[in-house]
Amino acid sequence: MIHSALLTDFYALTMAQGYWKNNMNKRAIFEVFFRRQPFGGGFSIFAGLGPLLDTIRDFSFSDDDLAYLESLKFFEKPFLNYLRDFHFTGSLWAMDEGTVIFPQEPLIRLSGNLIECQIAEGMLLNIINFQSLIATKTARVWLATGKGSVMEFGLRRAQGPDGAMSASRAAFIGGAAGTSNVLAGKEYGIPVLGTMAHSWIMAYPSEEEAFQAYADIYPEFPVFLIDTYDTLKSGTRNAIKVGKRVVERGKNFGVRLDSGDMHYLSVQVRKLLDDAGFPNAKISVSNDLDESIIETLTNTGAPIDSWGVGTRMVTGGDESAFTGVYKLTAREDASGKLIPTIKFSDNPEKTTNPGLKQVWRLKDSQGMAVADILGLEESPSGPDTLEQGSRYIFWHPSADYRHFYHTLEGSAEPLLKLRLDKGSLVSPQPSLEEIRRHTKAELELFDNSYKRLLNPHVYKVSVTEKLRQLKLNLIKDYLGDL
Amino acid sequence: MIHSALLTDFYALTMAQGYWKNNMNKRAIFEVFFRRQPFGGGFSIFAGLGPLLDTIRDFSFSDDDLAYLESLKFFEKPFLNYLRDFHFTGSLWAMDEGTVIFPQEPLIRLSGNLIECQIAEGMLLNIINFQSLIATKTARVWLATGKGSVMEFGLRRAQGPDGAMSASRAAFIGGAAGTSNVLAGKEYGIPVLGTMAHSWIMAYPSEEEAFQAYADIYPEFPVFLIDTYDTLKSGTRNAIKVGKRVVERGKNFGVRLDSGDMHYLSVQVRKLLDDAGFPNAKISVSNDLDESIIETLTNTGAPIDSWGVGTRMVTGGDESAFTGVYKLTAREDASGKLIPTIKFSDNPEKTTNPGLKQVWRLKDSQGMAVADILGLEESPSGPDTLEQGSRYIFWHPSADYRHFYHTLEGSAEPLLKLRLDKGSLVSPQPSLEEIRRHTKAELELFDNSYKRLLNPHVYKVSVTEKLRQLKLNLIKDYLGDL
Repeated sequence: MIHSALLTDFYALTMAQGYWKNNMNKRAIFEVFFRRQPFGGGFSIFAGLGPLLDTIRDFSFSDDDLAYLESLKFFEKPFLNYLRDFHFTGSLWAMDEGTVIFPQEPLIRLSGNLIECQIAEGMLLNIINFQSLIATKTARVWLATGKGSVMEFGLRRAQGPDGAMSASRAAFIGGAAGTSNVLAGKEYGIPVLGTMAHSWIMAYPSEEEAFQAYADIYPEFPVFLIDTYDTLKSGTRNAIKVGKRVVERGKNFGVRLDSGDMHYLSVQVRKLLDDAGFPNAKISVSNDLDESIIETLTNTGAPIDSWGVGTRMVTGGDESAFTGVYKLTAREDASGKLIPTIKFSDNPEKTTNPGLKQVWRLKDSQGMAVADILGLEESPSGPDTLEQGSRYIFWHPSADYRHFYHTLEGSAEPLLKLRLDKGSLVSPQPSLEEIRRHTKAELELFDNSYKRLLNPHVYKVSVTEKLRQLKLNLIKDYLGDL
Repeated sequence: MIHSALLTDFYALTMAQGYWKNNMNKRAIFEVFFRRQPFGGGFSIFAGLGPLLDTIRDFSFSDDDLAYLESLKFFEKPFLNYLRDFHFTGSLWAMDEGTVIFPQEPLIRLSGNLIECQIAEGMLLNIINFQSLIATKTARVWLATGKGSVMEFGLRRAQGPDGAMSASRAAFIGGAAGTSNVLAGKEYGIPVLGTMAHSWIMAYPSEEEAFQAYADIYPEFPVFLIDTYDTLKSGTRNAIKVGKRVVERGKNFGVRLDSGDMHYLSVQVRKLLDDAGFPNAKISVSNDLDESIIETLTNTGAPIDSWGVGTRMVTGGDESAFTGVYKLTAREDASGKLIPTIKFSDNPEKTTNPGLKQVWRLKDSQGMAVADILGLEESPSGPDTLEQGSRYIFWHPSADYRHFYHTLEGSAEPLLKLRLDKGSLVSPQPSLEEIRRHTKAELELFDNSYKRLLNPHVYKVSVTEKLRQLKLNLIKDYLGDL
């Protein structure tokens, strides 16, 4: 983990010096939200909060860091002295890690002084964007297997050593049963998995000797990699020969397919194993898998027991970044009053939702999620409230005319909860295993149509009437100026 | 940097225990190569060697690490004691960092005992794959700008904190002029860059006041972000107002576009700046750029002076992994003789090239690269040699019939050089600036047709007659067995 507050964008520091010099280091509210679901999907999983809370509490500048900043000849000595005592003193609200999330929703809200909020931006987005990307990808993979056994094998093609570590953590949250990365096993308590590489087989005079040697040392449940020479003619035959001796000792064995056509080979290998009297021998597969390939294999009934997924799960494959952004939504003015702020954009869908917000998840009387609503926690006319039995009008968060009416019959649960108060943890953090269980429980709250891998139903995210009025008024004010 | 040798795949350790128990920890040769060029391109840049050499020299198991391994109940105490003294004692050959590379070529060759080579695999591939991906992507971006000024702005969407650090390093190698990541500036000596975010502007009562405040603190070369409210009607006008005062003080200023149509806006902004009398004011752009978007803007003459590139450059965008693999190519047999090994596959193009190899880069009499040749450094009939004036037959490295004749008129330079001898550095490592210069020099060796972004000419990579015969003989031996 990096604790140096230099893990920030240079402009955060140049702006910080500006706020400091101009006596503008007042209270500010920043919110994190994302703009669109990755992978053409209908949901994402919020992840990375634990490492974020650990990092932000220790975020500081060492003497070394300050000496480096001084060498840049951009910063004045008194400001560097100010940074010497820098640590995060603000409050942080966030959703639970593992929560199913949707575009436009505030996932995290920071309330602090402008400088600390600005310096934390790069690190905060970096951690949340990456872990949410991978937890989301893994949840998709896990759903594609029919909630089966997914092993994360991504170390060698992950994006850097920590890319591998963070990915192992996020993949476990998203539904992976274990990882091949031993250090992630140690650091995060994730089960570690794996058996043999091609080099094991090539290091022995013959494939059979290699399998036998492995089974002798690891008799519990050896899994033989069967594609080094020829999957059907050589690998499967030798696995059966050696597996026979394993079964005679009262244990079970498995085989792993790592190249070739996975459907054809898994069917053939299953038949050979069954014919040899080993219907319980397991078949696992690996080789550039992703949720689409897995879904096809699952749908066509390929007899596969477990899935080793690497590269595309730990990097996101063809979508390698989550689109989380961090925007100022309110600031204290000279008189000490908190005023909402808005960012326009030449891309209209990028115009932000102003003010200090909460997200409520509306559920029906069966407890299934119906819609999420963004509302205000502070406004001149008081906070938004949602009451059972009441009928509300809700508005699309970026298009200004789409809306729907809803009578609240189930619950309306606020998703943002206080995590840091004046820089300190308010409650102990959940274990990784608890977060993983929360993800699974969350996914159960949503109808399958939202979880379809392609062309899913779009879940409703709306804003309250109060928030919409605030936004429209701010737009009107600014447009009037132009 | 992670020094724990637990940053490895679990199977490396289970296999290691097997080799150790079965007295098989003999000398082995492993080579790293990759299978196809990323991004539909015609070249890649080799990167990551420096961090790899630093990591592998310190790679070891702490008491903590060993206690964790013991808790898994997979490893015997005497083997764990063996790991207590583990460090890399072998030799490592590699290409220079920054070298232009092609599929099938050995980029790195390890000669060591089986166990150390196996344990290093995951970490080694992780570092090389990621940094080569990003150096390659950045070189493409840099070429697309017409070898212009590229700033790496990727921290917030890089894959984890170290993903950001490694990416900043690799992007600098690939041609970026600087980074926004301050910690990368400190650790690697990369120039740091950046000015203001939208939040700076939103923190002031008006855009003009925000610009003026910035210019007062940073009078040298303020760059105003002009799209917070409206790029043309508001941002550019205010930048000109404030810029006028900057220029009156004898300095220059710039503007940054961060949303909207970059071609249209850059042309309009250029016109407004010129009309206001500021032909030297600079225009920089950012907003989800990649080499394709940049090439279109460059080709259509958009008046852009510098390019801020983030997400897609530091993650690879829609290709998020480099396909480097690590294969056993020779091993010592029971009699102490080094014998070449081969891996077949049900995907024929995945069959490996056996033996202890070198790569020669053939150049013509003008010094331009003509072809790369893989040959043997050890074979029963002696090593391959390449002599000026001689005519050779060279064979396609994976198809067994394609070949060409070449009379060597320029040089034949071996690309793999010894870096570690018995685990120790043979010579000091180059600075990052030197590596960056080497990349630029390397790119000059290749005709533009190889560097085209899409559908490039395919550079010739072949094998010597001797290597081809070795491969065919091994294939025949094994096929005879089946």
